[in-house]
Amino acid sequence: MNHYDVVVIGCGAGGYNTAIRASQLGLSVACVERASNIGGTGMRTGCIPSRLLLHTSEIYDLANKGKNAALGIGCAPTLDLTQMMAYKASTVEKMSNSIHKLLRKQGVTLIHGDALLAAAGQVIVRKTGGVQQTLSGTALVIATGSVPIPLPFAAFDHMRILDSADALSLGKVPRHLAIIGAGAVGVELGSIWQRLGSRITLIERCDRICHWLDRDVTATLERSLRQRGIDIRVSSDVVGLDKHSDSVSVQLRAAASGKITHIDADRVLVAIGRRPSTAGMNLASVGMQTGYKSTLSQQGPATPVTSMTNGSGIWVIGDAGPGPMLMSKAEEEAIACAERIAGLPGFVSYPSIPYVLHTSPEVAMIGRTEDELRGTGAAYRVGYYPLAANPRAAICGTSEGFVKLLVDADTNLIAGAHLIGPGAADLISQVAIAMEASMICEDFARICHPYPVWSEALRQAAMAAGGWMMHVAI
Amino acid sequence: MNHYDVVVIGCGAGGYNTAIRASQLGLSVACVERASNIGGTGMRTGCIPSRLLLHTSEIYDLANKGKNAALGIGCAPTLDLTQMMAYKASTVEKMSNSIHKLLRKQGVTLIHGDALLAAAGQVIVRKTGGVQQTLSGTALVIATGSVPIPLPFAAFDHMRILDSADALSLGKVPRHLAIIGAGAVGVELGSIWQRLGSRITLIERCDRICHWLDRDVTATLERSLRQRGIDIRVSSDVVGLDKHSDSVSVQLRAAASGKITHIDADRVLVAIGRRPSTAGMNLASVGMQTGYKSTLSQQGPATPVTSMTNGSGIWVIGDAGPGPMLMSKAEEEAIACAERIAGLPGFVSYPSIPYVLHTSPEVAMIGRTEDELRGTGAAYRVGYYPLAANPRAAICGTSEGFVKLLVDADTNLIAGAHLIGPGAADLISQVAIAMEASMICEDFARICHPYPVWSEALRQAAMAAGGWMMHVAI
Repeated sequence: MNHYDVVVIGCGAGGYNTAIRASQLGLSVACVERASNIGGTGMRTGCIPSRLLLHTSEIYDLANKGKNAALGIGCAPTLDLTQMMAYKASTVEKMSNSIHKLLRKQGVTLIHGDALLAAAGQVIVRKTGGVQQTLSGTALVIATGSVPIPLPFAAFDHMRILDSADALSLGKVPRHLAIIGAGAVGVELGSIWQRLGSRITLIERCDRICHWLDRDVTATLERSLRQRGIDIRVSSDVVGLDKHSDSVSVQLRAAASGKITHIDADRVLVAIGRRPSTAGMNLASVGMQTGYKSTLSQQGPATPVTSMTNGSGIWVIGDAGPGPMLMSKAEEEAIACAERIAGLPGFVSYPSIPYVLHTSPEVAMIGRTEDELRGTGAAYRVGYYPLAANPRAAICGTSEGFVKLLVDADTNLIAGAHLIGPGAADLISQVAIAMEASMICEDFARICHPYPVWSEALRQAAMAAGGWMMHVAI
Repeated sequence: MNHYDVVVIGCGAGGYNTAIRASQLGLSVACVERASNIGGTGMRTGCIPSRLLLHTSEIYDLANKGKNAALGIGCAPTLDLTQMMAYKASTVEKMSNSIHKLLRKQGVTLIHGDALLAAAGQVIVRKTGGVQQTLSGTALVIATGSVPIPLPFAAFDHMRILDSADALSLGKVPRHLAIIGAGAVGVELGSIWQRLGSRITLIERCDRICHWLDRDVTATLERSLRQRGIDIRVSSDVVGLDKHSDSVSVQLRAAASGKITHIDADRVLVAIGRRPSTAGMNLASVGMQTGYKSTLSQQGPATPVTSMTNGSGIWVIGDAGPGPMLMSKAEEEAIACAERIAGLPGFVSYPSIPYVLHTSPEVAMIGRTEDELRGTGAAYRVGYYPLAANPRAAICGTSEGFVKLLVDADTNLIAGAHLIGPGAADLISQVAIAMEASMICEDFARICHPYPVWSEALRQAAMAAGGWMMHVAI
């Protein structure tokens, strides 16, 4: 039996980052991965391939835009979807290989097989060909990720009823793609296929898409997606799916009226959420249950990462644990977890984890929404700046989007930021830094940015919160 | 005679921002502008039109790139330069109009004409048609900007020997454009015309282009521009220009060997620098001289803005004063100046003003270069992160560029940051915020960014400075 300081189960963003950080800190690490390739859902069938197709479809869309004629650029692009998918696959392969190389350089032992928890501290790995290996670890880290949730009345058939991985690997552009669930996956994949030529219907049970976002952002995003031709049906429950030979009929029930309507699509993407992937791991043997909560993921500033299940040294991170299913959150937990195992301090600042949508326009948020702040009864000020007033936006011919800062009126600290517009996913980190540094909004308004850049919008929003926005007369 | 709390001479970035901020603070303001349109060099013939053509030429270049075929996108764009220039002109017009509207809403009195300083606090404005108006101001702000410096032996003829404004308004793509001076203007305009089809020769007296940048950045930028086909001649003095009927012959003398060579181009852009534009303003009448220094622009943290010329209430800001000729610096000085005039505290944090090049790859810097740090004898650490290791870069197929953080070894504070790669001009503000907040590098390395975004490169560089970079095995 091989003994390691740390045995990590799952080699996705949570797992490989734990392995790298633990190894940097001098610990011996084994990492068990079920799939033949490492990288996990995020890298292989989720976030990264989605981001790849968002990138390539955006270049296609940009070249395809009639508005280039106004710039003096004539362009009529052609699409070779097979080649685009091949680019996606080869890039994923390269990225996965580079993680593989990193793990090797760090001296991490990578073992392919299905992991089962046995007695405390022991992991049985069932490899292909019936070979079985037992590992023991002073610490065990469960980083097994998540799987998509199917509709209760219709399983994924991966042909007409698709999960997100299927929808990132289609061989031809769907004529009409119906998407059930307008969260991050739904709107991102809808954006990809809309750009590549599909008719898109986005169906959402709530009264708005991406309901965790600030309402102003949702409103702008919905308007923008609709302008691009995406049909959005909110407050609509899917109550049935009928598969026909060449189409799927989706039955919708309107929340308010109860009225039933039908949508005929050639493919349906079910994107109603994901759940931790821990089936078949024999969690009961170590006294754990599916649906468990790890203190690791409790919300709050500087949550101490503590080992769970009566001191047996088992950690749960990333999608396998509670909290938002984001690669960035998995990475944060991985680093904190490895440092705590090594006897160092480590924590995750959950309130400072940003959320983004890589749509057009791009969306990013951090901290509280206005609804949340209103709910707490705290006094706050809003710094709102429309990108239409931004010089960089004028150069790019962009007029949609805004920056909205929420500022605690008692402390002048930034309580939340909501961005929609180009570059939002990179701009949000400016607010993250200011929040982590406890920089007051007045100081944030004094940062000198280059000219003309998108970042100026953050400064102008901070000025707006202080009543002295310079780009717009108030 | 009309009296105002503030009379601002010049309605460019320095002038209009002074006027807006002073007016916000309740002061009566008149702004005198010589040109028929407001906005100044930056908006009308400099930074903004340059940025516009960088944007449009980048879209053209992107569509034109052979590498799109690898993404499955076929594209063969056509260029209509007349239309591209019309887009540029109409966008400049819109932006200028929006400033005009802002000034009107703020109640600023805008007066067109040539301003002359008379007795202390008095300005004579000579308008078209010989009309003359005298204004008095409790404070006078000189924000008259700058003009390009010609070669000592060859005046601008605006046909074959061009200044930057000419080179932003060409009616056809030059066959071969020689650019004298490889500073920001030279490399940006060279990038524009290279993308649009010109052969470019970039001539620089120093031993490298943009010599104020960190050496590592210059090296990468030079390599990248050369790969794009730009011919770069460093350590080369221009000693003569011969105009022929359809070309210009540029005589170069190599600094080391003294050897003379010739370059034949159809146009020559002279971009060797700019000087304050204060001629004809009768500065002597108020005891000022051209070549004056304003304490406003002294380097140092939190320099107090003080009125100059023996208490007569005259301020000099932007390009008209000393210091870097940047719209962002002019804006900072404008705000500080208006606040000081209004009796509020105000200062410019000169060390926190970033420098950018809107080239491909984009360049941005803040704080000290490695040469400067080495010169001070201070102990420092380098956090270097190659973009080739960045997931977002992998998605975009980008492998050139890096982030280099310089960290004071005694304090762990960030002393400088040097970025080359996509989005650098927006990313640099993250370092500006961290520096202004006195955030130590270790904390900067703990910021959680979305995944996958460019910003992660900053975090990885900070990790590298601390010896624990996660994306690259060290």
